[in-house]
Amino acid sequence: MKNQQLAETVKGWLLEAGELIKQRMKNSLVVSTKSHRSDLVTNVDKEVQQFLVERIEHFYSNDHILAEEDGRNYLPNMDGRVWIIDPIDGTLNFVFQRENFAIMVGIYEEGIGQLGFLYDVVKEELYWGGVDIGVFCNDRKLLSPKNLGAKDGLWGMNGAIYAQNIGNVQKIGKESMGVRIIGSAGIEFISLLKGNTVGYISNLYPWDYAAGMILVNEFGFKGSFLDGSQIDFQSQEKFIVATDVAYGEVMKNVVNF
Amino acid sequence: MKNQQLAETVKGWLLEAGELIKQRMKNSLVVSTKSHRSDLVTNVDKEVQQFLVERIEHFYSNDHILAEEDGRNYLPNMDGRVWIIDPIDGTLNFVFQRENFAIMVGIYEEGIGQLGFLYDVVKEELYWGGVDIGVFCNDRKLLSPKNLGAKDGLWGMNGAIYAQNIGNVQKIGKESMGVRIIGSAGIEFISLLKGNTVGYISNLYPWDYAAGMILVNEFGFKGSFLDGSQIDFQSQEKFIVATDVAYGEVMKNVVNF
Repeated sequence: MKNQQLAETVKGWLLEAGELIKQRMKNSLVVSTKSHRSDLVTNVDKEVQQFLVERIEHFYSNDHILAEEDGRNYLPNMDGRVWIIDPIDGTLNFVFQRENFAIMVGIYEEGIGQLGFLYDVVKEELYWGGVDIGVFCNDRKLLSPKNLGAKDGLWGMNGAIYAQNIGNVQKIGKESMGVRIIGSAGIEFISLLKGNTVGYISNLYPWDYAAGMILVNEFGFKGSFLDGSQIDFQSQEKFIVATDVAYGEVMKNVVNF
Repeated sequence: MKNQQLAETVKGWLLEAGELIKQRMKNSLVVSTKSHRSDLVTNVDKEVQQFLVERIEHFYSNDHILAEEDGRNYLPNMDGRVWIIDPIDGTLNFVFQRENFAIMVGIYEEGIGQLGFLYDVVKEELYWGGVDIGVFCNDRKLLSPKNLGAKDGLWGMNGAIYAQNIGNVQKIGKESMGVRIIGSAGIEFISLLKGNTVGYISNLYPWDYAAGMILVNEFGFKGSFLDGSQIDFQSQEKFIVATDVAYGEVMKNVVNF
Protein backbone atom coordinates (compact mmCIF):
# COMPACT_ATOMS: atom_id res chain seq x y z
CA MET A 1 0.00 0.00 0.00
CA LYS A 2 2.79 2.39 0.93
CA ASN A 3 4.66 1.27 -2.18
CA GLN A 4 1.56 1.78 -4.34
CA GLN A 5 1.15 5.40 -3.22
CA LEU A 6 4.82 6.12 -3.74
CA ALA A 7 4.63 4.48 -7.18
CA GLU A 8 1.82 6.82 -8.23
CA THR A 9 3.90 9.83 -7.16
CA VAL A 10 6.97 8.70 -9.06
CA LYS A 11 4.95 7.84 -12.17
CA GLY A 12 3.64 11.41 -12.19
CA TRP A 13 7.17 12.80 -11.97
CA LEU A 14 8.38 10.54 -14.76
CA LEU A 15 5.60 11.58 -17.12
CA GLU A 16 6.56 15.21 -16.42
CA ALA A 17 10.23 14.40 -17.01
CA GLY A 18 9.28 12.67 -20.27
CA GLU A 19 7.46 15.80 -21.45
CA LEU A 20 10.55 17.84 -20.60
CA ILE A 21 12.69 15.51 -22.73
CA LYS A 22 10.27 15.69 -25.66
CA GLN A 23 10.34 19.51 -25.48
CA ARG A 24 14.14 19.58 -25.42
CA MET A 25 14.33 17.15 -28.37
CA LYS A 26 12.78 19.86 -30.57
CA ASN A 27 15.99 21.89 -30.18
CA SER A 28 19.69 21.15 -30.57
CA LEU A 29 21.26 19.27 -27.69
CA VAL A 30 24.33 20.52 -25.86
CA VAL A 31 26.58 17.44 -25.93
CA SER A 32 29.77 17.02 -23.84
CA THR A 33 32.15 14.10 -23.59
CA LYS A 34 33.01 12.50 -20.23
CA SER A 35 35.68 9.76 -20.03
CA HIS A 36 36.16 9.32 -23.82
CA ARG A 37 34.70 10.45 -27.16
CA SER A 38 31.73 8.10 -27.11
CA ASP A 39 30.89 8.63 -23.40
CA LEU A 40 28.43 11.50 -23.74
CA VAL A 41 26.29 13.64 -21.52
CA THR A 42 23.80 16.28 -22.67
CA ASN A 43 22.14 19.27 -21.10
CA VAL A 44 18.97 17.16 -20.99
CA ASP A 45 20.53 14.34 -18.91
CA LYS A 46 21.50 16.96 -16.34
CA GLU A 47 18.18 18.78 -16.42
CA VAL A 48 16.16 15.59 -15.97
CA GLN A 49 18.34 14.46 -13.07
CA GLN A 50 17.98 17.87 -11.41
CA PHE A 51 14.20 17.74 -11.88
CA LEU A 52 13.99 14.37 -10.10
CA VAL A 53 16.55 15.18 -7.39
CA GLU A 54 14.76 18.41 -6.45
CA ARG A 55 11.46 16.58 -5.97
CA ILE A 56 13.02 13.78 -3.93
CA GLU A 57 14.88 16.25 -1.72
CA HIS A 58 11.72 18.33 -1.25
CA PHE A 59 9.25 15.53 -0.50
CA TYR A 60 11.50 12.82 0.96
CA SER A 61 14.29 14.81 2.58
CA ASN A 62 15.61 11.90 4.66
CA ASP A 63 16.21 9.70 1.62
CA HIS A 64 19.53 9.19 -0.14
CA ILE A 65 20.25 9.57 -3.85
CA LEU A 66 22.69 7.77 -6.15
CA ALA A 67 22.60 9.17 -9.68
CA GLU A 68 24.69 9.14 -12.84
CA GLU A 69 25.49 12.83 -13.30
CA ASP A 70 26.78 15.82 -11.36
CA GLY A 71 28.93 14.14 -8.72
CA ARG A 72 26.12 12.10 -7.20
CA ASN A 73 27.56 8.85 -8.55
CA TYR A 74 28.70 7.19 -5.32
CA LEU A 75 27.13 6.12 -2.03
CA PRO A 76 29.23 4.22 0.52
CA ASN A 77 26.28 2.01 1.55
CA MET A 78 22.61 1.28 0.92
CA ASP A 79 21.39 2.23 4.42
CA GLY A 80 17.93 3.79 4.69
CA ARG A 81 15.86 4.54 1.60
CA VAL A 82 17.94 5.05 -1.52
CA TRP A 83 16.82 6.35 -4.92
CA ILE A 84 19.03 5.21 -7.80
CA ILE A 85 18.58 7.32 -10.92
CA ASP A 86 19.71 7.28 -14.53
CA PRO A 87 18.10 10.39 -16.04
CA ILE A 88 18.76 9.23 -19.63
CA ASP A 89 20.01 5.69 -20.07
CA GLY A 90 21.32 5.17 -23.60
CA THR A 91 22.66 8.70 -24.08
CA LEU A 92 24.38 7.72 -27.37
CA ASN A 93 21.02 6.55 -28.71
CA PHE A 94 19.41 9.73 -27.40
CA VAL A 95 21.96 11.87 -29.25
CA PHE A 96 22.19 9.91 -32.51
CA GLN A 97 18.82 8.20 -32.79
CA ARG A 98 16.44 10.29 -30.68
CA GLU A 99 14.92 6.98 -29.56
CA ASN A 100 15.87 3.74 -27.77
CA PHE A 101 16.66 5.45 -24.45
CA ALA A 102 14.94 5.38 -21.04
CA ILE A 103 14.59 7.22 -17.76
CA MET A 104 15.29 4.78 -14.92
CA VAL A 105 14.52 5.04 -11.20
CA GLY A 106 14.95 2.32 -8.58
CA ILE A 107 13.96 2.68 -4.93
CA TYR A 108 15.66 0.50 -2.32
CA GLU A 109 15.12 0.20 1.46
CA GLU A 110 18.06 -1.12 3.47
CA GLY A 111 19.40 -2.59 0.24
CA ILE A 112 16.16 -4.38 -0.69
CA GLY A 113 14.53 -3.38 -3.98
CA GLN A 114 11.04 -1.92 -3.55
CA LEU A 115 10.00 -0.09 -6.72
CA GLY A 116 11.44 0.10 -10.22
CA PHE A 117 10.60 2.40 -13.18
CA LEU A 118 11.82 2.17 -16.79
CA TYR A 119 10.31 4.84 -19.03
CA ASP A 120 10.72 4.53 -22.81
CA VAL A 121 9.81 8.16 -23.44
CA VAL A 122 9.51 8.01 -27.24
CA LYS A 123 7.28 4.93 -27.22
CA GLU A 124 5.40 6.37 -24.21
CA GLU A 125 5.76 3.05 -22.42
CA LEU A 126 6.36 3.26 -18.67
CA TYR A 127 7.29 -0.10 -17.13
CA TRP A 128 6.91 0.01 -13.37
CA GLY A 129 6.19 -2.10 -10.33
CA GLY A 130 7.90 -3.96 -7.53
CA VAL A 131 7.20 -5.69 -4.25
CA ASP A 132 3.48 -6.37 -3.62
CA ILE A 133 2.61 -4.79 -6.97
CA GLY A 134 3.90 -6.93 -9.83
CA VAL A 135 4.93 -5.36 -13.13
CA PHE A 136 2.92 -3.04 -15.36
CA CYS A 137 3.39 -1.36 -18.73
CA ASN A 138 1.42 1.87 -18.28
CA ASP A 139 -1.93 0.54 -16.94
CA ARG A 140 -1.54 -3.02 -18.27
CA LYS A 141 -0.36 -5.74 -15.88
CA LEU A 142 2.31 -7.94 -17.47
CA LEU A 143 2.45 -11.71 -17.22
CA SER A 144 5.78 -13.33 -16.46
CA PRO A 145 7.60 -14.43 -19.61
CA LYS A 146 8.39 -18.15 -19.98
CA ASN A 147 11.36 -19.44 -18.00
CA LEU A 148 13.21 -20.39 -21.20
CA GLY A 149 16.63 -22.00 -21.49
CA ALA A 150 19.68 -20.14 -22.77
CA LYS A 151 19.45 -21.72 -26.23
CA ASP A 152 15.77 -21.04 -26.72
CA GLY A 153 15.82 -17.28 -27.17
CA LEU A 154 17.73 -14.14 -28.11
CA TRP A 155 20.35 -12.47 -25.87
CA GLY A 156 21.07 -8.79 -25.38
CA MET A 157 24.74 -7.91 -25.06
CA ASN A 158 27.15 -5.02 -24.79
CA GLY A 159 29.13 -4.57 -28.01
CA ALA A 160 32.63 -4.56 -26.51
CA ILE A 161 32.03 -7.61 -24.30
CA TYR A 162 30.62 -9.53 -27.26
CA ALA A 163 33.35 -8.47 -29.71
CA GLN A 164 36.15 -9.27 -27.25
CA ASN A 165 34.48 -12.52 -26.15
CA ILE A 166 34.89 -11.55 -22.50
CA GLY A 167 33.82 -14.41 -20.23
CA ASN A 168 33.34 -16.68 -23.28
CA VAL A 169 30.04 -14.96 -24.11
CA GLN A 170 30.34 -15.54 -27.86
CA LYS A 171 29.51 -19.18 -27.11
CA ILE A 172 26.15 -18.00 -25.76
CA GLY A 173 25.61 -16.12 -29.01
CA LYS A 174 26.48 -19.15 -31.14
CA GLU A 175 24.34 -21.63 -29.22
CA SER A 176 21.31 -19.40 -28.67
CA MET A 177 18.95 -17.90 -31.24
CA GLY A 178 21.29 -14.92 -31.59
CA VAL A 179 22.56 -11.67 -30.11
CA ARG A 180 21.06 -8.19 -30.22
CA ILE A 181 22.82 -4.95 -29.25
CA ILE A 182 20.44 -2.12 -28.40
CA GLY A 183 22.76 0.26 -26.55
CA SER A 184 20.53 0.97 -23.54
CA ALA A 185 20.32 -1.14 -20.39
CA GLY A 186 16.84 0.24 -19.78
CA ILE A 187 15.55 -0.92 -23.16
CA GLU A 188 17.32 -4.27 -22.60
CA PHE A 189 15.51 -4.77 -19.26
CA ILE A 190 12.25 -3.91 -21.03
CA SER A 191 13.08 -6.62 -23.62
CA LEU A 192 13.51 -9.14 -20.78
CA LEU A 193 10.18 -8.12 -19.20
CA LYS A 194 8.40 -8.57 -22.56
CA GLY A 195 10.06 -11.93 -23.21
CA ASN A 196 11.85 -10.53 -26.30
CA THR A 197 15.19 -11.78 -24.93
CA VAL A 198 16.09 -14.47 -22.38
CA GLY A 199 19.23 -12.79 -21.01
CA TYR A 200 21.43 -9.70 -21.06
CA ILE A 201 25.16 -9.26 -20.46
CA SER A 202 26.85 -5.88 -20.18
CA ASN A 203 29.26 -3.66 -18.26
CA LEU A 204 27.02 -1.68 -15.95
CA TYR A 205 27.01 1.00 -13.28
CA PRO A 206 24.56 0.73 -10.36
CA TRP A 207 22.10 3.15 -12.01
CA ASP A 208 22.08 0.92 -15.11
CA TYR A 209 20.75 -2.14 -13.26
CA ALA A 210 19.06 -0.82 -10.08
CA ALA A 211 15.58 -0.16 -11.48
CA GLY A 212 15.53 -3.07 -13.93
CA MET A 213 16.57 -5.68 -11.35
CA ILE A 214 13.62 -4.81 -9.11
CA LEU A 215 11.22 -5.46 -12.00
CA VAL A 216 12.78 -8.64 -13.39
CA ASN A 217 13.04 -10.05 -9.85
CA GLU A 218 9.23 -9.98 -9.77
CA PHE A 219 9.32 -12.45 -12.68
CA GLY A 220 11.98 -14.72 -11.15
CA PHE A 221 14.93 -13.68 -13.33
CA LYS A 222 18.40 -14.08 -11.80
CA GLY A 223 21.10 -11.40 -11.93
CA SER A 224 24.65 -11.05 -10.62
CA PHE A 225 28.04 -9.78 -11.62
CA LEU A 226 29.57 -11.96 -14.32
CA ASP A 227 31.89 -13.64 -11.76
CA GLY A 228 28.78 -14.81 -9.89
CA SER A 229 29.09 -12.33 -7.02
CA GLN A 230 26.10 -10.38 -5.78
CA ILE A 231 25.38 -6.90 -7.19
CA ASP A 232 26.54 -4.25 -4.71
CA PHE A 233 25.75 -0.79 -6.15
CA GLN A 234 29.38 0.32 -5.82
CA SER A 235 31.06 0.60 -9.23
CA GLN A 236 30.99 -0.42 -12.90
CA GLU A 237 31.09 -4.22 -13.24
CA LYS A 238 30.45 -6.92 -15.84
CA PHE A 239 26.87 -8.00 -15.24
CA ILE A 240 24.48 -10.79 -16.29
CA VAL A 241 20.73 -11.18 -15.92
CA ALA A 242 18.64 -13.98 -17.41
CA THR A 243 15.69 -16.26 -16.85
CA ASP A 244 16.28 -18.58 -13.89
CA VAL A 245 16.94 -21.54 -16.21
CA ALA A 246 19.16 -19.64 -18.67
CA TYR A 247 21.17 -18.04 -15.85
CA GLY A 248 21.88 -21.42 -14.30
CA GLU A 249 22.86 -22.97 -17.62
CA VAL A 250 25.30 -20.32 -18.77
CA MET A 251 26.89 -19.69 -15.36
CA LYS A 252 27.51 -23.43 -14.98
CA ASN A 253 28.51 -24.38 -18.51
CA VAL A 254 29.61 -21.33 -20.49
CA VAL A 255 30.69 -18.23 -18.59
CA ASN A 256 34.34 -18.29 -17.69
CA PHE A 257 35.16 -15.03 -15.95
CA MET B 1 4.41 9.50 -62.91
CA LYS B 2 4.26 5.84 -63.87
CA ASN B 3 6.32 5.03 -60.77
CA GLN B 4 4.00 7.15 -58.60
CA GLN B 5 0.91 5.20 -59.71
CA LEU B 6 2.63 1.87 -59.20
CA ALA B 7 3.81 3.03 -55.77
CA GLU B 8 0.23 3.77 -54.69
CA THR B 9 -0.83 0.28 -55.77
CA VAL B 10 1.98 -1.43 -53.88
CA LYS B 11 1.39 0.68 -50.76
CA GLY B 12 -2.20 -0.52 -50.72
CA TRP B 13 -1.11 -4.14 -50.98
CA LEU B 14 1.43 -3.69 -48.19
CA LEU B 15 -1.11 -2.16 -45.82
CA GLU B 16 -3.34 -5.18 -46.51
CA ALA B 17 -0.42 -7.56 -45.94
CA GLY B 18 0.36 -5.74 -42.67
CA GLU B 19 -3.22 -6.25 -41.48
CA LEU B 20 -2.89 -9.95 -42.36
CA ILE B 21 0.27 -10.18 -40.22
CA LYS B 22 -1.38 -8.41 -37.28
CA GLN B 23 -4.32 -10.83 -37.47
CA ARG B 24 -2.01 -13.85 -37.54
CA MET B 25 0.03 -12.49 -34.60
CA LYS B 26 -3.04 -12.98 -32.40
CA ASN B 27 -2.63 -16.76 -32.79
CA SER B 28 0.26 -19.19 -32.43
CA LEU B 29 2.69 -19.25 -35.31
CA VAL B 30 3.65 -22.42 -37.16
CA VAL B 31 7.44 -22.26 -37.11
CA SER B 32 9.77 -24.47 -39.19
CA THR B 33 13.53 -24.49 -39.47
CA LYS B 34 15.31 -24.17 -42.82
CA SER B 35 19.13 -24.55 -43.05
CA HIS B 36 19.77 -24.66 -39.26
CA ARG B 37 18.00 -24.25 -35.91
CA SER B 38 17.95 -20.45 -35.93
CA ASP B 39 17.02 -20.12 -39.63
CA LEU B 40 13.25 -19.99 -39.30
CA VAL B 41 10.22 -19.63 -41.51
CA THR B 42 6.61 -19.35 -40.35
CA ASN B 43 3.22 -19.90 -41.90
CA VAL B 44 2.91 -16.11 -42.01
CA ASP B 45 6.06 -15.58 -44.09
CA LYS B 46 4.62 -17.96 -46.67
CA GLU B 47 1.13 -16.50 -46.56
CA VAL B 48 2.35 -12.92 -47.01
CA GLN B 49 4.57 -13.93 -49.92
CA GLN B 50 1.70 -15.75 -51.57
CA PHE B 51 -0.57 -12.72 -51.08
CA LEU B 52 1.93 -10.46 -52.86
CA VAL B 53 2.88 -12.96 -55.58
CA GLU B 54 -0.77 -13.56 -56.52
CA ARG B 55 -1.38 -9.84 -56.97
CA ILE B 56 1.76 -9.31 -59.03
CA GLU B 57 0.97 -12.29 -61.24
CA HIS B 58 -2.62 -11.11 -61.70
CA PHE B 59 -1.98 -7.42 -62.44
CA TYR B 60 1.54 -7.52 -63.91
CA SER B 61 1.73 -10.92 -65.53
CA ASN B 62 4.82 -10.14 -67.63
CA ASP B 63 6.91 -9.23 -64.59
CA HIS B 64 9.40 -11.53 -62.85
CA ILE B 65 9.56 -12.34 -59.14
CA LEU B 66 12.50 -13.12 -56.86
CA ALA B 67 11.37 -13.93 -53.31
CA GLU B 68 12.71 -15.57 -50.17
CA GLU B 69 10.33 -18.49 -49.72
CA ASP B 70 8.79 -21.37 -51.65
CA GLY B 71 11.41 -21.99 -54.31
CA ARG B 72 11.26 -18.50 -55.80
CA ASN B 73 14.70 -17.60 -54.48
CA TYR B 74 16.70 -17.46 -57.72
CA LEU B 75 16.55 -15.54 -61.00
CA PRO B 76 19.33 -16.00 -63.55
CA ASN B 77 19.22 -12.32 -64.59
CA MET B 78 17.49 -8.99 -63.95
CA ASP B 79 15.98 -8.61 -67.43
CA GLY B 80 12.60 -6.88 -67.69
CA ARG B 81 10.72 -5.75 -64.60
CA VAL B 82 11.64 -7.71 -61.48
CA TRP B 83 9.94 -7.64 -58.08
CA ILE B 84 12.21 -8.68 -55.20
CA ILE B 85 10.30 -9.64 -52.06
CA ASP B 86 11.05 -10.52 -48.47
CA PRO B 87 7.64 -11.21 -46.95
CA ILE B 88 8.95 -11.00 -43.37
CA ASP B 89 12.50 -9.78 -42.92
CA GLY B 90 13.74 -10.50 -39.41
CA THR B 91 11.83 -13.74 -38.92
CA LEU B 92 13.67 -14.48 -35.64
CA ASN B 93 12.49 -11.13 -34.29
CA PHE B 94 8.99 -11.84 -35.58
CA VAL B 95 8.91 -15.18 -33.74
CA PHE B 96 10.61 -14.14 -30.48
CA GLN B 97 9.82 -10.43 -30.19
CA ARG B 98 6.72 -9.88 -32.30
CA GLU B 99 8.36 -6.62 -33.41
CA ASN B 100 11.46 -5.34 -35.22
CA PHE B 101 10.62 -7.02 -38.54
CA ALA B 102 9.59 -5.62 -41.92
CA ILE B 103 7.92 -6.49 -45.22
CA MET B 104 10.26 -5.49 -48.06
CA VAL B 105 9.56 -5.05 -51.77
CA GLY B 106 11.95 -3.67 -54.40
CA ILE B 107 11.03 -3.11 -58.04
CA TYR B 108 13.78 -3.08 -60.69
CA GLU B 109 13.65 -2.47 -64.44
CA GLU B 110 16.51 -3.94 -66.47
CA GLY B 111 18.51 -4.09 -63.25
CA ILE B 112 17.89 -0.43 -62.32
CA GLY B 113 16.10 0.21 -59.01
CA GLN B 114 12.78 2.04 -59.42
CA LEU B 115 10.72 1.69 -56.24
CA GLY B 116 11.48 0.43 -52.75
CA PHE B 117 9.19 -0.34 -49.79
CA LEU B 118 10.13 -1.17 -46.17
CA TYR B 119 7.12 -1.65 -43.93
CA ASP B 120 7.62 -1.80 -40.15
CA VAL B 121 4.23 -3.35 -39.51
CA VAL B 122 4.17 -3.03 -35.71
CA LYS B 123 5.18 0.64 -35.72
CA GLU B 124 2.88 1.22 -38.72
CA GLU B 125 5.70 3.02 -40.52
CA LEU B 126 5.90 2.43 -44.28
CA TYR B 127 9.09 3.79 -45.82
CA TRP B 128 8.76 4.02 -49.58
CA GLY B 129 9.95 5.91 -52.62
CA GLY B 130 12.43 5.75 -55.44
CA VAL B 131 13.35 7.38 -58.72
CA ASP B 132 11.55 10.73 -59.33
CA ILE B 133 9.80 10.40 -55.96
CA GLY B 134 12.29 10.72 -53.12
CA VAL B 135 11.72 8.92 -49.82
CA PHE B 136 8.66 9.05 -47.59
CA CYS B 137 7.64 7.62 -44.21
CA ASN B 138 3.89 7.16 -44.65
CA ASP B 139 2.85 10.60 -45.98
CA ARG B 140 5.86 12.53 -44.66
CA LYS B 141 8.72 13.28 -47.05
CA LEU B 142 12.11 12.57 -45.48
CA LEU B 143 15.15 14.81 -45.75
CA SER B 144 18.49 13.21 -46.50
CA PRO B 145 20.51 12.47 -43.35
CA LYS B 146 23.90 14.17 -42.99
CA ASN B 147 26.75 12.65 -45.00
CA LEU B 148 28.67 11.79 -41.80
CA GLY B 149 32.06 10.12 -41.54
CA ALA B 150 32.52 6.58 -40.27
CA LYS B 151 33.61 7.73 -36.80
CA ASP B 152 30.78 10.18 -36.30
CA GLY B 153 27.89 7.80 -35.85
CA LEU B 154 26.62 4.35 -34.90
CA TRP B 155 26.95 1.27 -37.17
CA GLY B 156 24.52 -1.58 -37.64
CA MET B 157 26.11 -5.00 -37.98
CA ASN B 158 25.36 -8.68 -38.26
CA GLY B 159 26.25 -10.53 -35.04
CA ALA B 160 28.41 -13.27 -36.55
CA ILE B 161 30.42 -10.89 -38.76
CA TYR B 162 31.05 -8.61 -35.79
CA ALA B 163 31.95 -11.41 -33.36
CA GLN B 164 34.30 -13.08 -35.84
CA ASN B 165 35.79 -9.75 -36.94
CA ILE B 166 35.27 -10.65 -40.58
CA GLY B 167 36.84 -8.04 -42.85
CA ASN B 168 38.33 -6.25 -39.81
CA VAL B 169 34.93 -4.75 -38.96
CA GLN B 170 35.59 -4.63 -35.21
CA LYS B 171 37.92 -1.71 -35.97
CA ILE B 172 34.88 0.19 -37.30
CA GLY B 173 33.10 -0.57 -34.05
CA LYS B 174 36.01 0.63 -31.93
CA GLU B 175 36.61 3.87 -33.84
CA SER B 176 32.97 4.83 -34.37
CA MET B 177 30.34 5.73 -31.78
CA GLY B 178 29.46 2.04 -31.44
CA VAL B 179 27.71 -0.97 -32.92
CA ARG B 180 24.06 -1.96 -32.79
CA ILE B 181 22.61 -5.37 -33.76
CA ILE B 182 18.91 -5.27 -34.59
CA GLY B 183 18.48 -8.56 -36.46
CA SER B 184 16.53 -7.25 -39.45
CA ALA B 185 18.04 -5.76 -42.61
CA GLY B 186 14.80 -3.90 -43.20
CA ILE B 187 14.92 -2.18 -39.81
CA GLU B 188 18.63 -1.47 -40.40
CA PHE B 189 17.87 0.26 -43.72
CA ILE B 190 15.18 2.27 -41.94
CA SER B 191 17.82 3.31 -39.36
CA LEU B 192 20.04 4.56 -42.20
CA LEU B 193 17.16 6.52 -43.76
CA LYS B 194 16.41 8.18 -40.40
CA GLY B 195 20.09 8.98 -39.76
CA ASN B 196 20.13 6.69 -36.68
CA THR B 197 23.18 4.87 -38.07
CA VAL B 198 25.83 5.84 -40.64
CA GLY B 199 26.47 2.36 -42.00
CA TYR B 200 25.43 -1.29 -41.96
CA ILE B 201 27.42 -4.48 -42.59
CA SER B 202 25.81 -7.91 -42.87
CA ASN B 203 25.58 -11.16 -44.79
CA LEU B 204 22.63 -10.66 -47.09
CA TYR B 205 20.51 -12.30 -49.74
CA PRO B 206 19.20 -10.21 -52.65
CA TRP B 207 15.76 -9.80 -50.99
CA ASP B 208 17.51 -8.40 -47.90
CA TYR B 209 19.07 -5.45 -49.75
CA ALA B 210 16.97 -4.96 -52.92
CA ALA B 211 14.29 -2.64 -51.50
CA GLY B 212 16.54 -0.79 -49.05
CA MET B 213 19.21 0.03 -51.63
CA ILE B 214 16.68 1.80 -53.87
CA LEU B 215 15.71 4.08 -50.97
CA VAL B 216 19.17 4.83 -49.57
CA ASN B 217 20.41 5.51 -53.14
CA GLU B 218 17.99 8.44 -53.20
CA PHE B 219 20.00 9.90 -50.29
CA GLY B 220 23.42 9.24 -51.84
CA PHE B 221 24.45 6.28 -49.68
CA LYS B 222 26.92 3.83 -51.21
CA GLY B 223 26.53 0.06 -51.10
CA SER B 224 28.46 -2.94 -52.42
CA PHE B 225 29.58 -6.38 -51.44
CA LEU B 226 32.26 -6.23 -48.76
CA ASP B 227 35.00 -6.99 -51.31
CA GLY B 228 33.97 -3.82 -53.17
CA SER B 229 32.22 -5.60 -56.05
CA GLN B 230 28.82 -4.48 -57.26
CA ILE B 231 25.66 -6.08 -55.85
CA ASP B 232 24.30 -8.63 -58.34
CA PHE B 233 21.10 -10.16 -56.88
CA GLN B 234 22.50 -13.70 -57.23
CA SER B 235 23.33 -15.20 -53.82
CA GLN B 236 24.10 -14.53 -50.16
CA GLU B 237 27.14 -12.23 -49.81
CA LYS B 238 28.86 -10.05 -47.23
CA PHE B 239 27.46 -6.58 -47.80
CA ILE B 240 28.17 -2.99 -46.75
CA VAL B 241 26.14 0.18 -47.12
CA ALA B 242 27.03 3.57 -45.60
CA THR B 243 26.97 7.29 -46.16
CA ASP B 244 29.13 8.29 -49.12
CA VAL B 245 31.86 9.62 -46.81
CA ALA B 246 31.78 6.69 -44.37
CA TYR B 247 31.77 4.12 -47.18
CA GLY B 248 34.86 5.70 -48.75
CA GLU B 249 36.68 5.86 -45.42
CA VAL B 250 36.14 2.30 -44.29
CA MET B 251 36.63 0.68 -47.70
CA LYS B 252 39.94 2.52 -48.09
CA ASN B 253 41.32 2.33 -44.56
CA VAL B 254 39.63 -0.43 -42.59
CA VAL B 255 37.86 -3.20 -44.48
CA ASN B 256 40.18 -6.03 -45.40
CA PHE B 257 38.15 -8.70 -47.14
